[in-house]
Amino acid sequence: MASEIINPRQDEPRADGLDPAFALHRGGKMAVRATVPVRDTADLSLAYTPGVAKVCSAIAERPELVHDYTWKSQVVAVVTDGSAVLGLGDIGPEASLPVMEGKAILFKEFAGVDAVPIALDARDPDEIVETVVRLAPSFGGVNLEDISAPRCFEIERKLQERLDIPVFHDDQHGTAVVTLAALRNAALLTGRGLAELRAVISGAGAAGVAIAKILRGAGIGDITVCDRGGIVSADRQDLNEAKRELAGLTNRAGLTGTLEQAMAGADVFIGVSGGTVPEPLVATMAPDAFVFAMANPDPEIHPEIAARYASVVATGRSDYPNQINNVLAFPGIFEGALRVRASRITESMKLAAAEALAAVIADELSPTHVIPSPFDARVAPAVAAAVAAAARTEGVARR
Amino acid sequence: MASEIINPRQDEPRADGLDPAFALHRGGKMAVRATVPVRDTADLSLAYTPGVAKVCSAIAERPELVHDYTWKSQVVAVVTDGSAVLGLGDIGPEASLPVMEGKAILFKEFAGVDAVPIALDARDPDEIVETVVRLAPSFGGVNLEDISAPRCFEIERKLQERLDIPVFHDDQHGTAVVTLAALRNAALLTGRGLAELRAVISGAGAAGVAIAKILRGAGIGDITVCDRGGIVSADRQDLNEAKRELAGLTNRAGLTGTLEQAMAGADVFIGVSGGTVPEPLVATMAPDAFVFAMANPDPEIHPEIAARYASVVATGRSDYPNQINNVLAFPGIFEGALRVRASRITESMKLAAAEALAAVIADELSPTHVIPSPFDARVAPAVAAAVAAAARTEGVARR
Repeated sequence: MASEIINPRQDEPRADGLDPAFALHRGGKMAVRATVPVRDTADLSLAYTPGVAKVCSAIAERPELVHDYTWKSQVVAVVTDGSAVLGLGDIGPEASLPVMEGKAILFKEFAGVDAVPIALDARDPDEIVETVVRLAPSFGGVNLEDISAPRCFEIERKLQERLDIPVFHDDQHGTAVVTLAALRNAALLTGRGLAELRAVISGAGAAGVAIAKILRGAGIGDITVCDRGGIVSADRQDLNEAKRELAGLTNRAGLTGTLEQAMAGADVFIGVSGGTVPEPLVATMAPDAFVFAMANPDPEIHPEIAARYASVVATGRSDYPNQINNVLAFPGIFEGALRVRASRITESMKLAAAEALAAVIADELSPTHVIPSPFDARVAPAVAAAVAAAARTEGVARR
Repeated sequence: MASEIINPRQDEPRADGLDPAFALHRGGKMAVRATVPVRDTADLSLAYTPGVAKVCSAIAERPELVHDYTWKSQVVAVVTDGSAVLGLGDIGPEASLPVMEGKAILFKEFAGVDAVPIALDARDPDEIVETVVRLAPSFGGVNLEDISAPRCFEIERKLQERLDIPVFHDDQHGTAVVTLAALRNAALLTGRGLAELRAVISGAGAAGVAIAKILRGAGIGDITVCDRGGIVSADRQDLNEAKRELAGLTNRAGLTGTLEQAMAGADVFIGVSGGTVPEPLVATMAPDAFVFAMANPDPEIHPEIAARYASVVATGRSDYPNQINNVLAFPGIFEGALRVRASRITESMKLAAAEALAAVIADELSPTHVIPSPFDARVAPAVAAAVAAAARTEGVARR
């Protein structure tokens, strides 16, 4: 998520006990529990042998019953290879586990969705795909997490082709949904339509690519994406497949050059780079601009400085207004998709999630309140309902 | 487990609602829960970003810290391919899930060990091995379950070679540990040493092979194993690798023929075949014989008939005395192994588990009480302590 773009400088390991995070994490952050009693022989003979055999036989005869009589339809695998963990980079599967457990408990606490951390000792995209396909019978959905770009795009696409359960790379789509929701509300607040806006996205990794795609799907005027090589455009020879696709979808204005050329006159800045953007560049944006500086813990530009030029400022941090936090999206999206046993999470389901998320605070909008608080209890139910309805409309719901 | 050898005839699917097992299984039998709070921004910033990054970095620097700061060391993967589920046979991964969930909640309720059902869409042993190796960073142990013989032997062996966490095929070793415990107490009760006894094992699948090996490890006098082709002996040409190994380990008496020849004069009958043994064969056993007829729900011989000839009778059923139930072994074995972060579960750890399990009721022995009740609260702690101590003695403990 945007709020996961952490600057590793600030997170050096410290001796256990000196930092409250270590005390909190001791023994892990989650557990399983039985939801049926196994206190005596009668319990055991129903929940286990011999009673369980009847349930197994019924599923063997009618496979769809697995959704009714197991936890499959309420449990999501949180899958990573540990290759792009927060801003720490490639720290491997074991070291990624605290994040995956954190994700799992957010699923549970925010939307009642069970989730299990699956950190894989595998790097080749096809090996990861093969492994997740083999695991899939046990799970109702797959949340891909902290897998490096551009491998994440290929892995997600291949899994979606092979599985009939939702596969959702949260670093892409969770961030994109929340960003779009905030942008919708910012536009509503300032009386503009999305079609009037030109957005600059700084960063063409997982989040940048997905934000560009969802903004385009939502009908934004134009998008200019910048990576370390400058504006992503069709004439560049150094683009990977994902960026080549992006070049075709964005930059209708045909801009070339660097972030400086992109920013001049832009209505929206969206930072998902982990880098910085100098104040003079922000000063060249159009009046009433929106600045979403989502790098964490150090936004691309300090929000108070950005506010000198922008009408709405958002960050990935919890200690400034308008936090772009993925926890506003992924729990409700999976809850809604699982509720109707959706076979996939489509573009229209993501757009519906963003609309519902934005609408939660439609009557409360202000420049410092274009996105709900992560702890707004209205969010997950609203997102889930919208996603479930969109799945039905699109014909991917199975109940 | 022995109590899982179910006769499929008696388990035809019935319409939902007509059988209490269906009502109990609706929605599954387990859930996850957070063990730390995520109620406000302060909670979130410790349990998730940015606080979690410090913990990830610490593990990246010192990999052994994964055991302290994640749930890895307390969670077991319950892995199956659905190829030999109870007595139902090859019903596939989805239909096996109710059993795997049942197993998972028994781990939790009987020993506080977290467990996650992993039903794999894979059949080739090497594919299963590869998949489990890739999953292993997330788990402290692997309980293999309901994988058909002889594939289960190869899969377990290869996983043990490649992983440094316990890999334990419960259908083999859980059954073997409980059987040995009951046999120890039966021998104690009747004043005999194990070395005096000749046992017949009917069935050379996962359970039969493992029971033969553990009885040999415990120093039993002799063992005769029978499969559908009769007595397993070195001169037979139809044996798979596991049975060829068995032929070398058993049948010192050099018997040939069928179950009839094996039973004559035997001191112990252990049925793990799912078949039947006629009363006249039991009548040919030595005086004060022990009959463990563990097929479920129909023991190889009715326990009341067996009692006409045997001094101790055990079954896999909960409604007769002396139930050989794996739940007496696997929760405590994993609890003990995980407690000391054992790299594997050795033969001496299994023998220690059987001794500790038997010893729980050493002062209470009677012909109808040679094995503790599954709900005897002394069992799991005693087994765990013995397994942990044996792991330390063997040098496979890592703390």
